[in-house]
Formats: sequence, structure tokens, C-alpha cells
Amino acid sequence: MTSIDLNADLGEGFGRWRLTDDERLLSVVTSANVACGFHAGDAVTMRRVCELAAERGVRIGAQVSYRDLAGFGRRSMDVPPAELAAEVAYQIGALEVFARAAGSKVAYVKPHGALYNRVVHDVEQAEAVVGGVFLAGPELPVLGLPGSRLLEVAGKAGLPVVAEAFADRAYTDEGTLVPRHEEGAVITDPEAVVTRSVELACSGSVQALSGRRVEVRARSLCLHGDTPGAVGLARRLRERLEASGVRVEAFA
Amino acid sequence: MTSIDLNADLGEGFGRWRLTDDERLLSVVTSANVACGFHAGDAVTMRRVCELAAERGVRIGAQVSYRDLAGFGRRSMDVPPAELAAEVAYQIGALEVFARAAGSKVAYVKPHGALYNRVVHDVEQAEAVVGGVFLAGPELPVLGLPGSRLLEVAGKAGLPVVAEAFADRAYTDEGTLVPRHEEGAVITDPEAVVTRSVELACSGSVQALSGRRVEVRARSLCLHGDTPGAVGLARRLRERLEASGVRVEAFA
Amino acid sequence: MTSIDLNADLGEGFGRWRLTDDERLLSVVTSANVACGFHAGDAVTMRRVCELAAERGVRIGAQVSYRDLAGFGRRSMDVPPAELAAEVAYQIGALEVFARAAGSKVAYVKPHGALYNRVVHDVEQAEAVVGGVFLAGPELPVLGLPGSRLLEVAGKAGLPVVAEAFADRAYTDEGTLVPRHEEGAVITDPEAVVTRSVELACSGSVQALSGRRVEVRARSLCLHGDTPGAVGLARRLRERLEASGVRVEAFA
Amino acid sequence: MTSIDLNADLGEGFGRWRLTDDERLLSVVTSANVACGFHAGDAVTMRRVCELAAERGVRIGAQVSYRDLAGFGRRSMDVPPAELAAEVAYQIGALEVFARAAGSKVAYVKPHGALYNRVVHDVEQAEAVVGGVFLAGPELPVLGLPGSRLLEVAGKAGLPVVAEAFADRAYTDEGTLVPRHEEGAVITDPEAVVTRSVELACSGSVQALSGRRVEVRARSLCLHGDTPGAVGLARRLRERLEASGVRVEAFA
Repeated sequence: MTSIDLNADLGEGFGRWRLTDDERLLSVVTSANVACGFHAGDAVTMRRVCELAAERGVRIGAQVSYRDLAGFGRRSMDVPPAELAAEVAYQIGALEVFARAAGSKVAYVKPHGALYNRVVHDVEQAEAVVGGVFLAGPELPVLGLPGSRLLEVAGKAGLPVVAEAFADRAYTDEGTLVPRHEEGAVITDPEAVVTRSVELACSGSVQALSGRRVEVRARSLCLHGDTPGAVGLARRLRERLEASGVRVEAFA
Repeated sequence: MTSIDLNADLGEGFGRWRLTDDERLLSVVTSANVACGFHAGDAVTMRRVCELAAERGVRIGAQVSYRDLAGFGRRSMDVPPAELAAEVAYQIGALEVFARAAGSKVAYVKPHGALYNRVVHDVEQAEAVVGGVFLAGPELPVLGLPGSRLLEVAGKAGLPVVAEAFADRAYTDEGTLVPRHEEGAVITDPEAVVTRSVELACSGSVQALSGRRVEVRARSLCLHGDTPGAVGLARRLRERLEASGVRVEAFA
Repeated sequence: MTSIDLNADLGEGFGRWRLTDDERLLSVVTSANVACGFHAGDAVTMRRVCELAAERGVRIGAQVSYRDLAGFGRRSMDVPPAELAAEVAYQIGALEVFARAAGSKVAYVKPHGALYNRVVHDVEQAEAVVGGVFLAGPELPVLGLPGSRLLEVAGKAGLPVVAEAFADRAYTDEGTLVPRHEEGAVITDPEAVVTRSVELACSGSVQALSGRRVEVRARSLCLHGDTPGAVGLARRLRERLEASGVRVEAFA
Repeated sequence: MTSIDLNADLGEGFGRWRLTDDERLLSVVTSANVACGFHAGDAVTMRRVCELAAERGVRIGAQVSYRDLAGFGRRSMDVPPAELAAEVAYQIGALEVFARAAGSKVAYVKPHGALYNRVVHDVEQAEAVVGGVFLAGPELPVLGLPGSRLLEVAGKAGLPVVAEAFADRAYTDEGTLVPRHEEGAVITDPEAVVTRSVELACSGSVQALSGRRVEVRARSLCLHGDTPGAVGLARRLRERLEASGVRVEAFA
């Protein structure tokens, strides 16, 4: 039986500000990418999200970022490797406290925003992120884009790697994401997103923008939680996966 | 044989800025209060100080603070208890990563600056700090002022408590510190500071401002590292303690 | 003919986060308290709010705060007067740039959150705020609570002062606000809020919690923009004021 | 008679931390690049530096930066142009308040650190900086590297531009700076630095790393204030310039 993990970014508020409907998303996803305070996520929110995740059996991951609250971690930064590694470790350590207090643990690491995009190509920063994971201690799995330098570097260093796919993004014939600014890059029709998620989970492939079928092997699907209707779409997607015989569960 | 711990604030730079001569102070003290990023202390500095401390067998403590880089944690803040507890835990968790990576661990907690002063009297914040220590996990000793609400609350909650004294501060007849703004509050003569440190360690008492002898039971002496001549004074003080038959070592 | 000013806090997002529906609120209020970056308000938001306010003829005020993004400026802080004055001036100066670029200017100053509450009683911080206004240059009016130290100090120093009232807050027999934590302190029934706003504007008095009528002289009413239904209530309130013959306009 | 401006970065502390000896540097330089709070520079420091500069007749410039206290503005960031422009304007506005309060004004703009280096090549960010200067109001001169996109864009937009040179940096045959990581890039011998400064001021040329003479037209020399001996070197350099018949004065 096929199985798939559903991950989403959670706890992305800060102080007075909220972004995601953490409580309801946690009833759908199997892995929670918890913001650790560098692009979002204050200590109270981190604690609460960890408690809710632990209660519902949702896996907790550290969503590590550049230090950039003002830019929500979406601005690529030339952070020297030693700083980046230490900052990644700092974030994992801070989250670990709340995961443990909730009776759970940090079970994986996923870079956020501009850092996520940068380590697709940038070996130096990819190595820094992996260095930060090792610094933080346990050999945590790294979640990222298939084919990215991050997963390559992490794999070589001996860390488990987990590839993820996006049901709401168009793919090129090479199996990479169509850049956001290109036409057709983002799939907004909910039914299409749901159909593609089943396709990705069941066949390990998806129809590329060109119409061709392209292989996309992913053990996790990334859901977005910061748009109106996000929770509804996430629910529908999960139901359809289960109705199609896919077991929705955290990656092994 | 009498023994005493020497503690000092370390790693109190941030990014480009340095404050304390961490390397040399670590050759004198037995306990390092490491800044955790809220009033000072970036991830790179935290890592480096933990490595140096571990190498030299110096105990690592989390110097937790209000979130206030601009004010260096010296401005009292009405932080709601749930926030304060979570922020204390966050800081301990972040430091734990670097202590562990250096082959050591966070061995105690000491509040910094305005928080240190506030929990002398403020039960609610004292309880929040203690709550944060429990949230962070292991039952860490708390270092603070004898007679403070913090040590009282921590003790009642079952945490080990460690009282500290200041060889460079005048004491009242009640064994409390003479407020800084009063005349004679700070002792600047190095020889007097050295003499008082021996007195505090050997007799558990010190001459109060009034001239009377007053009991001050402390297992640790707090040294200041951010003034010119601080390292020299610290060395001289440690030598004199040892010459006086006092064993200088981290508290049990 | 009676006239009243309607003020509301605007631009209280930060980076990725939004809080208030600035665009719609700016079609109702006559004075915009624009966040200046210390508790909320990034440079892009400040610019946009100033442009919208200028287009609609809404007066622009600097909503100055403690430096506390994590606490949204709601945590009272013991900021030394010289720091507080300089920080107030800094915020006014930053906002002035965007007001001027939009063809308008900063026309008044209103403290935010914990600072607002603190300068009701704290003379030292009230003087620091007033000092910051003078430092910033033009002799700007100060908006605050009637009877507050802030208005007293500002008035003595020669600044114009503008008292404001809250239609959704209960008043004591002395004309002060019933503290939030007391029962009945906040009036949630929209019709009651609307009625009280007309009462405050037309009679300069309101029914206190005790049932007695109490004088509350205010040239401005403070509307809240961060609750669901806030814009609808604000519209209704303005319509009713106008229907009651009150001219809704910025204070002279 | 030849004249030259001497500029240096000042006020680059933050809160508890100090970096430059502002007071003594202000007795040497003719233009002060004052940090505006984004990479360094709190409100109290900005105020103090402006007062000292005004007293001594030193010109005040806004040293604008990426928002990056942790990295001291030394990490290149992909800030979207609209954000960068608004942030530049914000910083100029904040500084303007303190310059004006001191009886002076912001008289020019100079980007700091990574932003300085980026706008040598990056047209988009150069345009954003220039956009920010216009947003801030008066048509301020822009200080930067000769041949940089920044000076090009600023000049085309109608802003006065001021080119600066570095007496302690090696030049290529093309008159550009030898990158820091290359051998011989930084000139550390004080006498050589002093000699080169006179050469640059008097002849508008300097000996390149290759030994060839290369033209470097600059109306300002940039001095560094954050190294030991910086003030002494600055004094010596100024004395030698004056002894060589160069008038040391702020650019016209």
C-alpha cells in the first residue's frame, strides 16, 4: 500500500500576529514544519504548536530560516557558512525544548523560504545547513526538494533525506518546479491540486506543464497553510488520498 | 577545606560587537554565564564560548534575559508569565545545543540584568523563570541572590539553588546589596575587592557599609568581566583565594 | 455645531503580517495613528498608509512605542528617559519622511500600548515622550487620555494637547477608564458603542458604570481596528454621529 | 588649491556596545557617515554623534544599510526594490531629526557594507537606493565608489554624486579596488597609507598593485575608524595632507 506524508508550515505568527490556522491544519497534516523564531515563531507559539502536534500525533520538524523577521525569511542572504550553521543549530535547539516538553521531539529539519530556495543550488549554504544539523546533535532527516544540493549534501554526509513534492505547482519536463513568475507555475484550481496529489502519491509522477508525464518521487507533499481556503483544500486532499487507498502518515 | 565557585558573564557580544574578553576570563572562572541571544550572544559566539569553556573544564550556565538587545537586558519589562517562561526555555534550549556539541551541558541557569534584579522581589516573574527551567527539562540549579524570591521559589519547586555574593559591592546590615546609586555602593579599590572575596569565601561574612560584620552565605562569587582591568583583577582574586587555602571550583 | 475627530491605529502589520484593514479604516477615520516600526509598522507599510491617508485627507499622527516587536509594545518597560526621548524622536522622524513624500506631514503624536498606559501615571516617561516630541522639531499636538500625566506635562511645556475618549470602554465616576480586567470594562454591544459615541460627542459626558453621568471632555474618539467587525462598527458610528448633527473632522 | 574631504563611519555602536571612538574621530574628519539603526546606531548614539558633529562643523551623512544588526549590514540581501527604497528613506528620516535638533542637517547619503558593495554592480538595488533618497525629500548628494552603478544611477537621476577613494586599499590597473581576499589588497603600513592619501588628493592618481600609475578621481577619502590605531592614523594623515598644501574640508 502506498503511503504519503503531508507537511505544512505552522506556527508562523510572531507576537501579536497570526498567519496560519495551526489548530485546524494540525488535524490534517502528518508533519509540522514549526517556525523557530528567525523568520516567524515566538516562544509561546512554538510551545503551543508543539503541544498540539504532540497531542495529535503529528511529527514535529524544525523549519529553520535566515534571521529575517522583517522579510519573513524570504530574502536570500549571503550568510557566512559558520554563522549559518550555528544559527541553524540554535533554532533546532530552541525548538527541541518545546517538542520535548510536549512529550515529542524534533524529528526532521526543513529550511524555510529563501534559504530553502538557495540550498537548491548553493553548495556552500547547503553544507552549512547540514553542518548545523550535525551540530544540533541527533542525525535528523532533512526535508527538501528532490535534486537539490541540500539533499545531495545531506545524503552524502549520512543524514536521511526526504524529498517532497508540490501538488499546486507546475513541473518542467526535467521534474523541477516551473519558476513562480512563469505563466502556469501555480495551480489554483482546487480540484486539479487534489487530483495531482493523488497522482503524485500513487504513481510517483505528474503531468508536466508541457503535457508530458514526468517522474517526481516524493515521500512527502507540501501543503500551504497561509492562503484563504487552505485548510479546506488540505482536508479535501487528504480525504481523496485516503479514498484512493493511499495511507497518509509521517515518513518513516 | 573551604571551596568557592567563581562565575562571570561571558559571550556578551553580538555580531560585530565584543564586550568581554571571553578567552582570558575562561582561564580564571569556574562557571560561565553564557548569554543566549536575548540581551547579547549570537549563535557563533555561543558556540565558541561553549567550546572554550568545555576545553577548560569551566561549567556552562544559561544566562537568560528579557528579549532586549537594544537595552542589553537592563530595562525591566512587564512580560506576562507564560511568555517569560517560554522565552527562558527557548534560551536554555538554544544554548544546550552548543554546550552538548562541545561535549558539555547546560549546568545551571542565571537571570541577567533587569530580570535578575526583578526576580529578587517579583514572585510572578520568579515563578515564570522557574517554570521556564522546568519546561526546558532537566532540573537545573538556579544561581541568584540569597534571599531573593527567585531562590525561594526555585527551592520550593525542588530545584537546587546556589546563592552568590559580590566582592565589589557594599552590603547592608541585613546582608542585602546597597543600591548602586547610593554612596559607597560599589567598591572600586582592587585590593579591597580581593580582601573581601577571601573574607566572603572563608568566613561566610563581610563587613557591611555600617562597619558591622554581616553574614553572607554564598557558594559562588560573581566577577565582572566588562570593565578595563577586569581580567587582571579576576586573576589576582583567584590567586589570593587559593593562597588563602580556598579551593576554587564549580559548585557541587 | 459640535465636531469630533475619529482616530484609529493603522499600519500595525510588520513584513508578512497584517493586522488592520488600513484601506477601509481610512475611509472612516479623520486621524490615523501610524505605527512607526517599534511595535509594528515596516517602512513599506508606513509609506503606503501615508499615501492612502494623504489621498483621503486623513490626518497623519506618529504612534510611538517602546521598542518591542515581540510584545507589540504592550509590555511596560523601564526605559531611561534619555533613551525614550531619542527613540520617540527617531520614530517621528522616520514617519515624517513618508508623510512628506505623500504630500502631507506628521500632525500629532500618540503613544501606543504600554507606553500610552504608563504615561498616564509616570511623570518621568511622560516628560521623556514630550522631550522626544520637542527633539523631533515642530511643536506637534499630543493625543492622550484626559487627566494623564502626559497631557499635563505636554500642556505645561507648551504643546497643544488633545484628549480622547473611548466609546467602547466603561468609565468610573471620576471620568477615568474602568481597568480592562474588571467586569463591564469593555462594551461589546455595537449599538451601545454607537450611542455612547454620540453622547460623548454631543454632551461631553457619558453614563459611568455606576449609572451616574460623568463628564468626559474629548476632542477625539478612539476606534479600534483590529477586531472582526471593526470597520463595520466604525462606519456605523460615523454615520450616526453625522446623522446626529456632529461634524466628523480632524481636531483643529 | 587642492581640497579633499575626509569621511568615516561613526556611531556604529548599538545599545551597550561601542565600536568607534566617535569623539576623537570627529576632531579629524570633515564628513561623518552616521549609522541609522539598521546595521548599528541606536537613537541615543545618533543624537550624540549629531551633536558632536554639529559642534565641530563636521558634515552629517546618512550611512544607510540593509536591516541586519546581527550581521552588521555585511551580508548581501535580496531585498525587493520597493522595500529597500522605503528602508533607505526611513533611515534618512530618522537621522534627519537628530541632525536638525543639533542645528545641522543630513547633507549626503552613503550606503554601508554589503549594500555599498552590491550597488557597485546591481542596478536594481542602486535604483532603489536612489529612489529612497528622493523619497526622503531633499536632493541629497550620494557618496560612493567611482564607476559604481550607484553613482551612475544617482547622476542620471539628477543627484549630486561624490566619488571616494581608499588610501589603505590597493587598486587595479582599471582604477577599481583589488578584492579584499587577494594578496596585497589591504595596505597596513601607516606611512604608505599616509603617502597614498596625499598622492590621491594631489594628483588624482595612485600607484596600482601592478606598479602602474592609475587615475582615481575622488573628492573624498574614506578613513576607517574601527581598528586600533585608527584615530592616530587619521590624525597623521590629515596633518600630512595639510602640510602638503591640501585643504581638508567637506565636499562642496
